[in-house]
Amino acid sequence: MNYKMMGRFIGYILLVEAIFMIPALLIGLFYGEDRASMGFGISIFLVFVIAMFLMLLCRGSKKGFKAKEGLLCVSISWIAMSLLGCLPFYIAGEIPSYLDALFETVSGFTTTGASILSQVEPLSKSLLYWRSFTHWLGGMGVLVFVLAVGALGDSKNGFTMHLLRAESPGPQVGKLVPKMKKTAEILYLIYIVLTIANVIFLLLGKMPLFDALCTAFGTAGTGGFGIKNDSIAGYSPYIQNVCTIFMLLFGVNFSCYYMLLLRQFYSVFRDEELRFYLGVVICSIVMITFDLRGIYDTFEETVRHAAFQVSSIVTTTGFATTDFDQWPSFSKAILLCLMAIGASAGSTGGGFKCARVLIVMKSLRRSVRQAISPQKVQVVRINNHMIDEKVLLNTHAYLAAYVSILFLSFLIVSLDRHYSVITNFSAVLSCFNNIGPGLEAVGPTCHYGGYSALSKIVLIIDMLAGRLEIFPILILCSRSTWGISANRRLFRRKRHTKVEGNFDETDQPENS
Amino acid sequence: MNYKMMGRFIGYILLVEAIFMIPALLIGLFYGEDRASMGFGISIFLVFVIAMFLMLLCRGSKKGFKAKEGLLCVSISWIAMSLLGCLPFYIAGEIPSYLDALFETVSGFTTTGASILSQVEPLSKSLLYWRSFTHWLGGMGVLVFVLAVGALGDSKNGFTMHLLRAESPGPQVGKLVPKMKKTAEILYLIYIVLTIANVIFLLLGKMPLFDALCTAFGTAGTGGFGIKNDSIAGYSPYIQNVCTIFMLLFGVNFSCYYMLLLRQFYSVFRDEELRFYLGVVICSIVMITFDLRGIYDTFEETVRHAAFQVSSIVTTTGFATTDFDQWPSFSKAILLCLMAIGASAGSTGGGFKCARVLIVMKSLRRSVRQAISPQKVQVVRINNHMIDEKVLLNTHAYLAAYVSILFLSFLIVSLDRHYSVITNFSAVLSCFNNIGPGLEAVGPTCHYGGYSALSKIVLIIDMLAGRLEIFPILILCSRSTWGISANRRLFRRKRHTKVEGNFDETDQPENS
Repeated sequence: MNYKMMGRFIGYILLVEAIFMIPALLIGLFYGEDRASMGFGISIFLVFVIAMFLMLLCRGSKKGFKAKEGLLCVSISWIAMSLLGCLPFYIAGEIPSYLDALFETVSGFTTTGASILSQVEPLSKSLLYWRSFTHWLGGMGVLVFVLAVGALGDSKNGFTMHLLRAESPGPQVGKLVPKMKKTAEILYLIYIVLTIANVIFLLLGKMPLFDALCTAFGTAGTGGFGIKNDSIAGYSPYIQNVCTIFMLLFGVNFSCYYMLLLRQFYSVFRDEELRFYLGVVICSIVMITFDLRGIYDTFEETVRHAAFQVSSIVTTTGFATTDFDQWPSFSKAILLCLMAIGASAGSTGGGFKCARVLIVMKSLRRSVRQAISPQKVQVVRINNHMIDEKVLLNTHAYLAAYVSILFLSFLIVSLDRHYSVITNFSAVLSCFNNIGPGLEAVGPTCHYGGYSALSKIVLIIDMLAGRLEIFPILILCSRSTWGISANRRLFRRKRHTKVEGNFDETDQPENS
Repeated sequence: MNYKMMGRFIGYILLVEAIFMIPALLIGLFYGEDRASMGFGISIFLVFVIAMFLMLLCRGSKKGFKAKEGLLCVSISWIAMSLLGCLPFYIAGEIPSYLDALFETVSGFTTTGASILSQVEPLSKSLLYWRSFTHWLGGMGVLVFVLAVGALGDSKNGFTMHLLRAESPGPQVGKLVPKMKKTAEILYLIYIVLTIANVIFLLLGKMPLFDALCTAFGTAGTGGFGIKNDSIAGYSPYIQNVCTIFMLLFGVNFSCYYMLLLRQFYSVFRDEELRFYLGVVICSIVMITFDLRGIYDTFEETVRHAAFQVSSIVTTTGFATTDFDQWPSFSKAILLCLMAIGASAGSTGGGFKCARVLIVMKSLRRSVRQAISPQKVQVVRINNHMIDEKVLLNTHAYLAAYVSILFLSFLIVSLDRHYSVITNFSAVLSCFNNIGPGLEAVGPTCHYGGYSALSKIVLIIDMLAGRLEIFPILILCSRSTWGISANRRLFRRKRHTKVEGNFDETDQPENS
């Protein structure tokens, strides 16, 4: 294991985190929030020292970097970022329990938006800003940011590719352009432009700048932390509609925007995932609007709430304009299904991802056809590209991991005897898919503060596993990674067919 | 398509059904139930006429039989059996709605045990007998019975293998002995012996013969129709414990019993699925017993109810000795997970099956290992046998189909606005896994009578899809099967890689 390179990289990530805390400190000083400013000051100092220590300790290593180490780097740096990123809340004393502060921060970085706070308005402005900014940073990924600013250079040993692969959502990681650094740059550029556009549209609706910034961070990262107790419900219909549209925009695969920039309009129009995503959104809005007839005063209000809630849930943002826990069963069932589907691959949204749903559906159709005509070999295609069998198998493995983790977490969280089955199930579904609100006792008007420490830890792991798409976390927990029980593995290896060839391109150097 | 052979085969199945209705008619005459006897008389006559008509119409066909036709035969004959098997309830007027009668019969044949009746005790004895007997017949499968009595001969074109493959549960269909007829014979022999043993043990507990017969039918088929309104709750603890043990026995892969007969004790002891199945059962009983502390008067009563309910749910039987909907969330969460796992492959139980859970878990572990060391080719093994990649892919496809159908059905059933989310979800989970009771409004003390016609139809399809393991039903609904939109397919085929070789052994003749 190339510990030195991993350590140096994690140090670098923490340095970036410390730098991003500075604006929050300035906001605290500006508004004269003493305790919060002190919290940020101490936190920045601590994070900076740890980062420097790691970077100095782990200087110089010429060894190559393997796929495994890329995945490990990602999961460890996310955990480290969360463990240190929650310090301001804790030191300022605004969230007195460290576990609660960690929950809130993981919920921020993973763009979940699940909160343990019953009231958010009493929080200091600087902490509210940091809370929302974690969404923005976590949305596109801090590692992608580090790639974009080029701190690591365009290394020749596949290092960057491994990182992007681990942090970017979706079954297949596409490089927009051959160079990884350039890809990361383009992604962040689109991300920043869209965020600025969002802020401008919110300002046009007479939203205060601070509110507009925080709301745009929450929307862009598809996070969902609000700065008001009633989320977005108190804002004007115009602002609610702006949020609806931008949530949907941030749930689209960013490569579509790149194609638009390249004027490949036809490719975007024909993109199967985009069509599926928009199809799901439109169908859901229509069905929920129909189901909600008679509940709100006007048709406009019904459509507005339906569209807002569908966008919020399918993109896994988690903002709310109304208490959808009071909606009829059918609408709630649609929302539960949307929770599981999630946004597009390559967007800032979470969930299982539309691309995976498409692959699983098409692969299922192939299985049926193959049962009908066993002699014919059929392939699965998305956008006229043949999907590699390895991607298929990985997608299926992802589904298996997804279902297993869902049920296991549900079981452990159910140990909290005072919550109902649907509360626990929706809490796990919501955290694992990085959404935020669930149903009943964790509905949009409620919070996660009532859960036991064990449940909170399980939900924290679920949020991380959901954001990093399970495998980096599984690899972190796998015995094989750490060479434990080497004897047993040695014994087993004899029975494995061992092939010397290189079967996965992840270990091949990147052609940059 | 070999319609003639299919028609003849379905005719044969219906003939068997008519013959099996005769004991119910005799019971009706014995107890002097005029209307019920008339119902059976007319039904037997009708079924017999249709069967004869089909068999005469479809005489003589020398063509071979393909995998597709085997799967179709199975799904169509199950539907035909249900459509005609519900006639006695309807004609006797004891279930006035045909759809309700169909629901009850499908629930019987698929060994679900979900009922639309609020009270079962007012039913005639003959109808109660038939209701329970459908469980017994559906448990091992009527097609397996037809194979066992050798009506089809040991055909040389793989016909029997296709049928067994479609009707027997589990990811891989093992022939116990080279000849299919012999395999079916052995399976039914074990089934009959275990059922008789069950009846004897129940009689020893001073249960009346009629009750013992019906309860044994429900237990053997892992069905769950009781003949009392309170299911098994009113019987003595001894009888409840006998049920617990026999439910567990019928949830074991029958090939284990065959191995015991061959004195291969070590193989049975090492069987991974059996270990997993028993492990799940024991862990669940321990956890639920712990969770239920203080709810029942004595420790014995707590363990008895926990063991009974775990066995009833994991084997997908659905009997109840207590209203588990009143249990705490953790116990209910365990039961929901058990609903999804289900019994062993090759047993009479339903659900996803322990063998599939094992395969999915091992395949997942392999994916993680492969991400850690991409160069190494690793295989998945169960009981030291390498699992074929095709079986792996099929198991994953099964999981995908399972999850898709679950969510889709949940959505449609949720259109019943008066039921809660958890009622609808547990109803679908329960019907699809052939269990019977769910939670809340479809809990063990409630019934499915309140659902709309649409929901009932969806649940009927779910029950059939669950019992036949999805693919036969999917193939029945696939356009490719019926050659619809041949032009589109022709157009598509050009893009498919076509390989001439025979890729699936399902189309190869059976070596018998």
